Amino acid sequence: MNVVELIRRKRDGGVLSADEIGAFVRGVTDGWVPDYQAAALLMAIYFRGLDGGELGALTDAMLHSGDVLDLSDIAGKKVDKHSTGGVGDKISLHLAPAVAACGVNVPMISGRGLGHTGGTLDKLEAIPGFDVHLDEARFRRVLGECGLALIGQTDRLAPADKQLYALRDVTGTVESVPLIAASIMSKKLAEGIDGLVLDVKVGSGAFMKTPERARELARTLWAIGRRAGKRVSAFLTDMDQPLGRWIGNAVEVHEALAVLRGQGEPDLVELTLALGGEMLVLGGVAASYAEGRERIARVLGDGSALARFRRCIELQGGQIPTTRWFAEEHEKVEAGAGFVQRIDAEAVGLAALALGAGRTRKEDEIDPGAWVRLMAKLGERVEPGHHVAFFSRPRDPAVAAEVRERLRAAFTLGPTPPAPRPLIVEVIR
Amino acid sequence: MNVVELIRRKRDGGVLSADEIGAFVRGVTDGWVPDYQAAALLMAIYFRGLDGGELGALTDAMLHSGDVLDLSDIAGKKVDKHSTGGVGDKISLHLAPAVAACGVNVPMISGRGLGHTGGTLDKLEAIPGFDVHLDEARFRRVLGECGLALIGQTDRLAPADKQLYALRDVTGTVESVPLIAASIMSKKLAEGIDGLVLDVKVGSGAFMKTPERARELARTLWAIGRRAGKRVSAFLTDMDQPLGRWIGNAVEVHEALAVLRGQGEPDLVELTLALGGEMLVLGGVAASYAEGRERIARVLGDGSALARFRRCIELQGGQIPTTRWFAEEHEKVEAGAGFVQRIDAEAVGLAALALGAGRTRKEDEIDPGAWVRLMAKLGERVEPGHHVAFFSRPRDPAVAAEVRERLRAAFTLGPTPPAPRPLIVEVIR
Repeated sequence: MNVVELIRRKRDGGVLSADEIGAFVRGVTDGWVPDYQAAALLMAIYFRGLDGGELGALTDAMLHSGDVLDLSDIAGKKVDKHSTGGVGDKISLHLAPAVAACGVNVPMISGRGLGHTGGTLDKLEAIPGFDVHLDEARFRRVLGECGLALIGQTDRLAPADKQLYALRDVTGTVESVPLIAASIMSKKLAEGIDGLVLDVKVGSGAFMKTPERARELARTLWAIGRRAGKRVSAFLTDMDQPLGRWIGNAVEVHEALAVLRGQGEPDLVELTLALGGEMLVLGGVAASYAEGRERIARVLGDGSALARFRRCIELQGGQIPTTRWFAEEHEKVEAGAGFVQRIDAEAVGLAALALGAGRTRKEDEIDPGAWVRLMAKLGERVEPGHHVAFFSRPRDPAVAAEVRERLRAAFTLGPTPPAPRPLIVEVIR
Repeated sequence: MNVVELIRRKRDGGVLSADEIGAFVRGVTDGWVPDYQAAALLMAIYFRGLDGGELGALTDAMLHSGDVLDLSDIAGKKVDKHSTGGVGDKISLHLAPAVAACGVNVPMISGRGLGHTGGTLDKLEAIPGFDVHLDEARFRRVLGECGLALIGQTDRLAPADKQLYALRDVTGTVESVPLIAASIMSKKLAEGIDGLVLDVKVGSGAFMKTPERARELARTLWAIGRRAGKRVSAFLTDMDQPLGRWIGNAVEVHEALAVLRGQGEPDLVELTLALGGEMLVLGGVAASYAEGRERIARVLGDGSALARFRRCIELQGGQIPTTRWFAEEHEKVEAGAGFVQRIDAEAVGLAALALGAGRTRKEDEIDPGAWVRLMAKLGERVEPGHHVAFFSRPRDPAVAAEVRERLRAAFTLGPTPPAPRPLIVEVIR
C-alpha cells in the first residue's frame, strides 16, 4: 500500500476503500506506517470527512485491533449508554442500576474526565475501595450477578483507537466529527452489546456548542451503530447549564444516590427516565418509550435500583462511607440579584477543575472530595445578598480567588426569567 | 511554544505570527518539533494557505536556516532566472551566458529533474567533466571571471527547506502553492541576488495545468521576492508542448549550443529574448524590455554568448565532446497524418523518463545519452507515412514498445491547424 497515495486521494476529496483503511489502521498499530503519514492523513480527514463506508471501515478496523467481548452466555439483552461528556453529568451512576433493576444488563465501560468535563470512572473511584479495573472473568461475574458492571477501558479493547487518539491529541485533529464518532463507536462495539443509547450533549458545557454540530455527531454515531447491526437511539440533550446541583466526584455519587432514593433533582430524574426508558425499549423489556419511562420511575421509587447499585459497589470492592466523605469547609459566591438567565457550564467545569476535581494533565491526581454546588439554576430567582454557588475551600487562597471569579462570571442574572429550554432537544431513532 | 495550538489555529483559518513560524522552522531543524506535528501543520497549511506575512516569515526562516551568500564584492548586478519546470526546457543553459555577455552576473543554482520534467543540473552533468559541486570560493571565482556560474544546491543553503521538502514528499503536501513558493524563494534569496525573473510554466507539461493555478503561484512568488526587497518579474509561459525539438540531457546541451550559434528553434529563441531581456532590465543594463531583448539577440548572433558558455564550461572543468555524444541508434514513431493539434508534453516527458533521461527514484542513475526528438510541433503538417518523433533505441524492446506507445498517444492530429497559442501568456512586473 502506498500511503502517500491514500493521503493525496483523501486530501483531494476522494474515497478510501475498506481494505485501504484496514491496512492503514493495522500499519499504524504495527508501526510500519510512520506517525507523520498518519498525522497527515488524519488532518486530511479533518478537512474532507469520511463517508458512511469509510466510517464503518475505520470503526471496524479499530474495533478488531483488540478483543471483542462475547457476552452471549449471559442471559438477557445487554444495552449501554454513552454520553459525549458534560458538567455535573452523573447520570450513568444511577441509570445503570435502574436499567439493570428492570431486567436489561448494562456492561458499562466508562472513561475519565476530559478537560472541563467529569468522568464516570473518576466519580466511581471516589467510592473507597471501588475497583474499576476488573479482568474479563470478574467483569462477567459482576455483570451476571447484578445485571451491571462499571469498569474502565482496558488496553485490550480497541488498542488502535488508543494509539490514534494519542496522535490526534498532539496533532490538532481531535475535533473531527467522523474521527470522534469512530473512536467512540469502536470502543462501544467492543463491549458485546445489543443496543446503545447515545446522549450527545449540546451547549456551553458540551464539546459540541451548537445543535448543528451535535446533530452531525449524533447522526454519525447512530449510523455507525446501525451499520454494525446494533439497535441505537441518539438523544441530543441540553448541556447549557450543569446537570443537577453538584459538580465534583464524591458529591456526584452522593447526588446520584439521592436520585436512587427518589429524591433527585428534576433535570437528573427527567434525563434518567428518558435515557433509561429508551434503553428498556432497545433491550426488549418495554414495548414503548412511555412504558420504559414508567418502569424506570418505579425502580427509582421502590428502592430496587438503589439495591442494585449497592450490590454492584459491593461486588466491585467498594463501600459508601457512612460519614461525610467530601470537603466540608467552603466558600460562597455572590453574583448580584435577579433571575438566572445563563450559566456558563464550561466555566463551572473549569472552576471544579481548578479545585482539583479533574486533571489538567493526564498524570495529575484528582481530589475526590473537591466540589462546586450550584445554589441557583436557570430561571431561579436570586435575592439580594444570596449566593449563586458554594465551593469547597482550596488550600491556596489564590486558587480560591480564581474559582470565585470563574463562578461569579459564569452566572448572568437579569430582571426577567429566561425562556424555558427543553432538556431533550431531539431524539434520533 | 505550544505546537498543537499553532496547528489548531491554522486548521481553523487563523494566522501565525512571524515569531511562531520562525520557532516552528527552527524546531523542525533542531528536531524538537516532531515530524508528526510538522506533517499536521503542513496539511493544515495545504487547506488554509498562508497570508503575505506568514509567507514572508516562512521563507525568511528557511532562508536563514543556512548560509546566505553575500556577492557584494563582485562588481555588477546579480540576476537569476528560475523556472518551475517543464519538458525540453534547456533555456538556462544558453540564457545565463547570454545575460552574462551583456554585463549582468548570473549566479545560478539549479535543481535536478523532478518527475516528467528535466533538470538543468542533469543536463550540465551530461557535459564530460563538468563539475556542478563547486565550493563557495570556486563559485565566486568562476562567477567573477566569466559572469556566470552554474551549480547545484548545497547542503548549506536553506537546509530547513530540504528537511521540510522531504517531509512534504511523503505526506502528500507537495502541491501547495504557498509551500511551493516559500521553498523556491528561500533557495533563490539565499543566492545573494539583486533581481530574479520567474518563468512559471503552465499547460500539459507543467506542474500547474491551468492558468489560474500558474497565476496564483506566479503572484505568490513575486510577492515574496518583492517583500524581501528584490526586483522581481514573473512570466507565465506556455508548456503545453515541449520547448524546442529535443528532450534528454546531452541533446539539450546540443540544442542550447545551437541557440548560442544563432541557429535556435523559434520558441527557444523567443523565450530567451523575453526572459533575458527582462533580466537585463532588472540588472540595470537595459533601459527597457525592448532594448533588453535587442541586446540578447545581438550576443546570440555575434558569438559572445557562446564564448561565455565555453569559458564557463572550461572553468567548471567540462569539455564539449567533438564527436557525437548521444545515442545514434533510434526508433521512429508514426501517428497518422494531418496537422498537429495537440502534444501532451507530460507524456513526452514520461517517454524520455522511461528511456532513462530522468529518475523515477532519487537514487536512479540517468543515461545522459538517451533522447526524444520531436519531428513535428504544434500546427505543423505531418504527411502520410512521415514520423512525429524519433527516440534513442533502448536495450529493452519492452521499453521501446512502451515509449513508442506513449509518444504516439501524445500526438493529436487533425484536418486543420489549431489556433496559435502565445508562448508568453502573461507578465507580472
